[in-house]
Amino acid sequence: MRITIVNGPNLNLLGKREPEIYGNLSFEEFYKQLVANNEGVDFDYFQSNVEGELINKLQEVGYTSDGIILNAGGYTHTSIAIADVIKAISSPVVEVHLSNIWAREETIRHQSLLSKNCVGVISGFGLRSYQLALAYFLNQ
Amino acid sequence: MRITIVNGPNLNLLGKREPEIYGNLSFEEFYKQLVANNEGVDFDYFQSNVEGELINKLQEVGYTSDGIILNAGGYTHTSIAIADVIKAISSPVVEVHLSNIWAREETIRHQSLLSKNCVGVISGFGLRSYQLALAYFLNQ
Amino acid sequence: MRITIVNGPNLNLLGKREPEIYGNLSFEEFYKQLVANNEGVDFDYFQSNVEGELINKLQEVGYTSDGIILNAGGYTHTSIAIADVIKAISSPVVEVHLSNIWAREETIRHQSLLSKNCVGVISGFGLRSYQLALAYFLNQ
Amino acid sequence: MRITIVNGPNLNLLGKREPEIYGNLSFEEFYKQLVANNEGVDFDYFQSNVEGELINKLQEVGYTSDGIILNAGGYTHTSIAIADVIKAISSPVVEVHLSNIWAREETIRHQSLLSKNCVGVISGFGLRSYQLALAYFLNQ
Amino acid sequence: MRITIVNGPNLNLLGKREPEIYGNLSFEEFYKQLVANNEGVDFDYFQSNVEGELINKLQEVGYTSDGIILNAGGYTHTSIAIADVIKAISSPVVEVHLSNIWAREETIRHQSLLSKNCVGVISGFGLRSYQLALAYFLNQ
Amino acid sequence: MRITIVNGPNLNLLGKREPEIYGNLSFEEFYKQLVANNEGVDFDYFQSNVEGELINKLQEVGYTSDGIILNAGGYTHTSIAIADVIKAISSPVVEVHLSNIWAREETIRHQSLLSKNCVGVISGFGLRSYQLALAYFLNQ
Amino acid sequence: MRITIVNGPNLNLLGKREPEIYGNLSFEEFYKQLVANNEGVDFDYFQSNVEGELINKLQEVGYTSDGIILNAGGYTHTSIAIADVIKAISSPVVEVHLSNIWAREETIRHQSLLSKNCVGVISGFGLRSYQLALAYFLNQ
Amino acid sequence: MRITIVNGPNLNLLGKREPEIYGNLSFEEFYKQLVANNEGVDFDYFQSNVEGELINKLQEVGYTSDGIILNAGGYTHTSIAIADVIKAISSPVVEVHLSNIWAREETIRHQSLLSKNCVGVISGFGLRSYQLALAYFLNQ
Amino acid sequence: MRITIVNGPNLNLLGKREPEIYGNLSFEEFYKQLVANNEGVDFDYFQSNVEGELINKLQEVGYTSDGIILNAGGYTHTSIAIADVIKAISSPVVEVHLSNIWAREETIRHQSLLSKNCVGVISGFGLRSYQLALAYFLNQ
Amino acid sequence: MRITIVNGPNLNLLGKREPEIYGNLSFEEFYKQLVANNEGVDFDYFQSNVEGELINKLQEVGYTSDGIILNAGGYTHTSIAIADVIKAISSPVVEVHLSNIWAREETIRHQSLLSKNCVGVISGFGLRSYQLALAYFLNQ
Amino acid sequence: MRITIVNGPNLNLLGKREPEIYGNLSFEEFYKQLVANNEGVDFDYFQSNVEGELINKLQEVGYTSDGIILNAGGYTHTSIAIADVIKAISSPVVEVHLSNIWAREETIRHQSLLSKNCVGVISGFGLRSYQLALAYFLNQ
Amino acid sequence: MRITIVNGPNLNLLGKREPEIYGNLSFEEFYKQLVANNEGVDFDYFQSNVEGELINKLQEVGYTSDGIILNAGGYTHTSIAIADVIKAISSPVVEVHLSNIWAREETIRHQSLLSKNCVGVISGFGLRSYQLALAYFLNQ
Repeated sequence: MRITIVNGPNLNLLGKREPEIYGNLSFEEFYKQLVANNEGVDFDYFQSNVEGELINKLQEVGYTSDGIILNAGGYTHTSIAIADVIKAISSPVVEVHLSNIWAREETIRHQSLLSKNCVGVISGFGLRSYQLALAYFLNQ
Repeated sequence: MRITIVNGPNLNLLGKREPEIYGNLSFEEFYKQLVANNEGVDFDYFQSNVEGELINKLQEVGYTSDGIILNAGGYTHTSIAIADVIKAISSPVVEVHLSNIWAREETIRHQSLLSKNCVGVISGFGLRSYQLALAYFLNQ
Repeated sequence: MRITIVNGPNLNLLGKREPEIYGNLSFEEFYKQLVANNEGVDFDYFQSNVEGELINKLQEVGYTSDGIILNAGGYTHTSIAIADVIKAISSPVVEVHLSNIWAREETIRHQSLLSKNCVGVISGFGLRSYQLALAYFLNQ
Repeated sequence: MRITIVNGPNLNLLGKREPEIYGNLSFEEFYKQLVANNEGVDFDYFQSNVEGELINKLQEVGYTSDGIILNAGGYTHTSIAIADVIKAISSPVVEVHLSNIWAREETIRHQSLLSKNCVGVISGFGLRSYQLALAYFLNQ
Repeated sequence: MRITIVNGPNLNLLGKREPEIYGNLSFEEFYKQLVANNEGVDFDYFQSNVEGELINKLQEVGYTSDGIILNAGGYTHTSIAIADVIKAISSPVVEVHLSNIWAREETIRHQSLLSKNCVGVISGFGLRSYQLALAYFLNQ
Repeated sequence: MRITIVNGPNLNLLGKREPEIYGNLSFEEFYKQLVANNEGVDFDYFQSNVEGELINKLQEVGYTSDGIILNAGGYTHTSIAIADVIKAISSPVVEVHLSNIWAREETIRHQSLLSKNCVGVISGFGLRSYQLALAYFLNQ
Repeated sequence: MRITIVNGPNLNLLGKREPEIYGNLSFEEFYKQLVANNEGVDFDYFQSNVEGELINKLQEVGYTSDGIILNAGGYTHTSIAIADVIKAISSPVVEVHLSNIWAREETIRHQSLLSKNCVGVISGFGLRSYQLALAYFLNQ
Repeated sequence: MRITIVNGPNLNLLGKREPEIYGNLSFEEFYKQLVANNEGVDFDYFQSNVEGELINKLQEVGYTSDGIILNAGGYTHTSIAIADVIKAISSPVVEVHLSNIWAREETIRHQSLLSKNCVGVISGFGLRSYQLALAYFLNQ
Repeated sequence: MRITIVNGPNLNLLGKREPEIYGNLSFEEFYKQLVANNEGVDFDYFQSNVEGELINKLQEVGYTSDGIILNAGGYTHTSIAIADVIKAISSPVVEVHLSNIWAREETIRHQSLLSKNCVGVISGFGLRSYQLALAYFLNQ
Repeated sequence: MRITIVNGPNLNLLGKREPEIYGNLSFEEFYKQLVANNEGVDFDYFQSNVEGELINKLQEVGYTSDGIILNAGGYTHTSIAIADVIKAISSPVVEVHLSNIWAREETIRHQSLLSKNCVGVISGFGLRSYQLALAYFLNQ
Repeated sequence: MRITIVNGPNLNLLGKREPEIYGNLSFEEFYKQLVANNEGVDFDYFQSNVEGELINKLQEVGYTSDGIILNAGGYTHTSIAIADVIKAISSPVVEVHLSNIWAREETIRHQSLLSKNCVGVISGFGLRSYQLALAYFLNQ
Repeated sequence: MRITIVNGPNLNLLGKREPEIYGNLSFEEFYKQLVANNEGVDFDYFQSNVEGELINKLQEVGYTSDGIILNAGGYTHTSIAIADVIKAISSPVVEVHLSNIWAREETIRHQSLLSKNCVGVISGFGLRSYQLALAYFLNQ
């Protein structure tokens, strides 16, 4: 089973950015643990701050991956182009967020342009959001 | 560990309502399986079509339950009173939905009044949404 | 032929509430006349001020009634949960209103959340709205 | 008793336009049946695609007709001028629609500028909407 | 000096429609008085309920008239096409209204699509609005 | 003199819910003091989390009570049905709130659907809001 | 006959401010001419940049003046307090504007908070707007 | 105890303006009674139609007064500057209104810019609103 | 091949209206050239300022024409009735505009009610917009 | 004559993405045909999923190309930066779309931020949209 | 070089109002330092809580001052009359704010009605905002 | 002291794009002068048309730079991702604009998504905006 994790802008700052909220663990460290704990799974991880490179990656894996876990960061709320590629590809995509986006103050963050093209959404569980998305794909 | 599942209006029709979308399984049957598969967990299940009875139940279990899985159905989008009780109680609440509410046509269903007071949201995975919420509480 | 009439909040005040607008006839008196004038029809009447009890009733009769005449009163404009049950059941529902809801001053009353799931809407004819809905079901 | 039926734009296409939705019966054929089935009633029928001609007709009959059944078609949602004439004349007007306008996708069709000046609205019963409006005037 | 008065829908009902508000004088009677009281002026008067015929008239006189007094009635608030012809012609147009359109309850009547292409607006003085517009053109 | 106090959802949690904001006093304890301090007054107190039961109560006392003090909690902002019953009954209703609803962050809480049908509103004085409403009815 | 002219903020700059649009004539000069040309009329003129002083003036003359010509300048679009005083006083008020306020680019200038409490509005005729308002009061 | 009453625009017309609604009592007469009935209280009263003078007064008393009762009249709905001074001063401010502002037709009057910076709001009780605010400060 | 060109209000002023923008060529002259340059094509041309006559024409040719080129002028932005007839007929319609409607200042002109029922839209190329629409139908 | 075609995100999936809608032809294949059929034209083609690279390309060719055909895909509706570069460069840009963007369900796709800076728009003709744009530049 | 500083409502409270945010320095003290540090500059300083007096001042200095530094406080967001005077005068105006107005919670404070008529805006640098505005005028 | 200047899309066209507005100086030339005039400052300059590369740069310098001067061009109004990185990094950011963004016609340009996370905003002073931002950081 091939699982792809795609992270958008500023998620490479995890562990460094507001650690009192997001913790000290970087995503790379978390990812290592995830791989270690799920041996039979063929993982692939990609991060970029460039909207178009996220699209490139989703096009590349979107016809062969068995499941894509996508955290598009700030592009979640503004990118019709990413919404389009999710619709165009055949691999199922689960949208995840570290924080509960509806609990945030700014109303612009309450709306995701991507959700309607995803299988479902998991939001608010920190790094555990990724684990729950994985559990969905592994049918655990 | 005490887990409470609270279902709102029309979820008692599951298995009967639009089975081509929601499947033939009633929630009661699903619940039996869930209990059977999670032996050490102390489950509690409640369904009502009455908004105020959902509030009564949340008040009743909201200081002792270790985790509440809430699918408030149609009240999700209109009930400030349920949002209030989620905030007032001390037990953590995870909001779940069978369907991906953002993929639905009506924009009124894209907004949940409850989300901002919940730990997080899991939406779009059918009955598996409940299992993922449970996994979160059981820290699997 | 089984016809169910379901009345929502405050319709039990008919004859008592603003009689210069709504007349002195209570709904119960009107209902007796309706039954008397339509002998072959198997009538059923229910009123509640509780949103959830209206849903309970609609679930109860919604798979066997040949026609449901629904005046949801104030819930017309705010209840997604009632809109849901109308969609879920198989009996046809006609939405009726005593007053012409679009002629009322408050714009919030110009919008019905229920209409789109009903067969049709009859609004503004006082108690005759119920008779016209009945005529539709009896195909007179 | 004098009853006037006024039909707006494109209703002359009935029977020809999307027959799988609206049926094969033209309005003229339906009108003949209506006249035949209501012998004592003095009917008058008018159709035009021109907004101003609908106003001309409503002015002409609006002080002598005992009841006007109006389906203003697409002008329902945009014509303040027709709303004005309904208010200016003394004959009562019932607004009818073939389809349930609130069940249509376009939100612009959910609003009628005319309703507030009419006695009431009957919407969603196909050609039977006209019959129910007639029943109202005939007090059947 | 050539002055054209153009009246839109339902202004032919003046004297007949809500006389307690608009008075018993028909526009034709008022017009006769106006002509009699302004001997040197070459008047022209046109009324139609048809939007397009108002446009036809405005096109016809719009390059030779010295002043056009326009009361477009209900089309005031909905007609981009009339706004276009006012802009296209070279004769100056003064927009008049019998009633004070901003004092009316319906907010849709507070907005005129025509005003921005007119020289100015005179609203709320009953038939005297026409006299004031005339005074403007005659530079009295 | 008969005074009725009607409390809506979650007000039964007073003293328990966010005590740093709302204090440790439960409403029942406060009510006892109120009764003790106003000996000649015939008090009646009702609380429910169910919207329809609040309506039931208001209907029950609404023709005989000399004054109703209503804190509809979360239903304040969403219930047209409660607004309707306030209008339908003859007893005067004063709307009260513990907190200053306009000082709360959520804009949805700045609007009360009930206010326009009440005698007046007293908001922001904690439990003293009830005392001021009482003072109004007792004309102190 | 007593006529009061009340001018709001920045109208004292007339003749100085954008003379290519508003001309070189100051309002004081224009006022002198107006007085000279209307001998039997008892004129009164007031200008202030202070909203509250405009209210003071309107209160002072508002029970004895036979007609008030008001150009509230920038306060036209923002002052509920001036709208209130126009409603409170008994003298009739005509609202005037030099420019056609609907032809201006900024949509905030298309709305007057005052109009609904005035007899009528005359907008767009430069200083002639004052003359037309005067003609209305003098019934010329 | 020092109590300051601050009244905004047009409240000096009380007794004169729409007496059928507001009564014949001027505020000055009412104030005399209030002072007479509350002997130990050190009262201070100020009225102005000028927004900035209200601010001046609030700044002047806002660090020494024990309680300020403010009816900002029409500025209630438009003055961010008054909202600012309420926030800046240390004396507690209670906002009062004679009429129930939410029962008024104009939606612009349903919103107060001041409320969120006040202790609370008392609206709809006529001159008794001032008495209830006083009762709050006197802790009666 | 039968091609119908339908022009709406004020397009008969072409060559006369703002020639510095739209040029000196009248549509009739342009049409003659178009016919001359496309010999095998059976052209039909219609212009009216009356909305309903445009509908009449579209109904008349809408089942036999091979392609309709429609410039509805000002009705583009306001006519649901024309949108309806485009949907009802079977001939394909291409919407054209002389100017780029999105480059115009007024936002009301940025929205076409017709576009969604047309095959496509060609806007901004002057009279060449018609030629490009023709090229589409002729599959050049 | 130098013609540049610039395609935005996901247009490289043409032929692969929803072929039942968009056909099996990839853009590259279509482009080869276009080049072959227009021998004297100097074509240049660029596609990128990265918004900034589209800007880079438009800057590069925008002072020398004789015509730019731009399909910005999902960036059409969100990119002020691309709108800026279209305005900044001197080459004329024609905006094209495969589908009729106004016929799509999502209202966010009905608005193009780019149109106002382009010469014109051609939308809804599939790959023929490009050919029509080319015809415009070649003045065919 | 003549520089005028104009401060609006509540800025006279600086040093006294929320000193933990705004510091203990009063504006007068700051102003003294500013004058001392810029010897060759001819300074003029004015503060008022009255909107109209700010207009008076701007009119007075607006044709002779070489630069006006304006902090209109709460009037920034509501005063069309101040926006008008900025446009009418010939001296250049720089708008300054102590706090970053876009970082404030209330959305009403994110919009300045004045900005579009000013040379530019400097916001968020505390009292240094004034110094930067001065630097602009002194071309340092 | 390390100062970083980050310029967004199309600012590399400065000197070339609309020179009558923006002047003939390229940013590179201006930058050279800036460096020459501020000898002790350690400058760093970066420009990109790619949103994600701006984020990369801000991440790179955002923990070591003493001050970042950011002109995000068209991304100012649309980029939540850039707003996020400004919040995540520790270096202070001053937002600058060449033109006064509130004086521009398009309302979409009046809103900056970035401002609330910046220290402050300087807008409208051409290239001098950068100098004023620098003056702020250098505390001149």
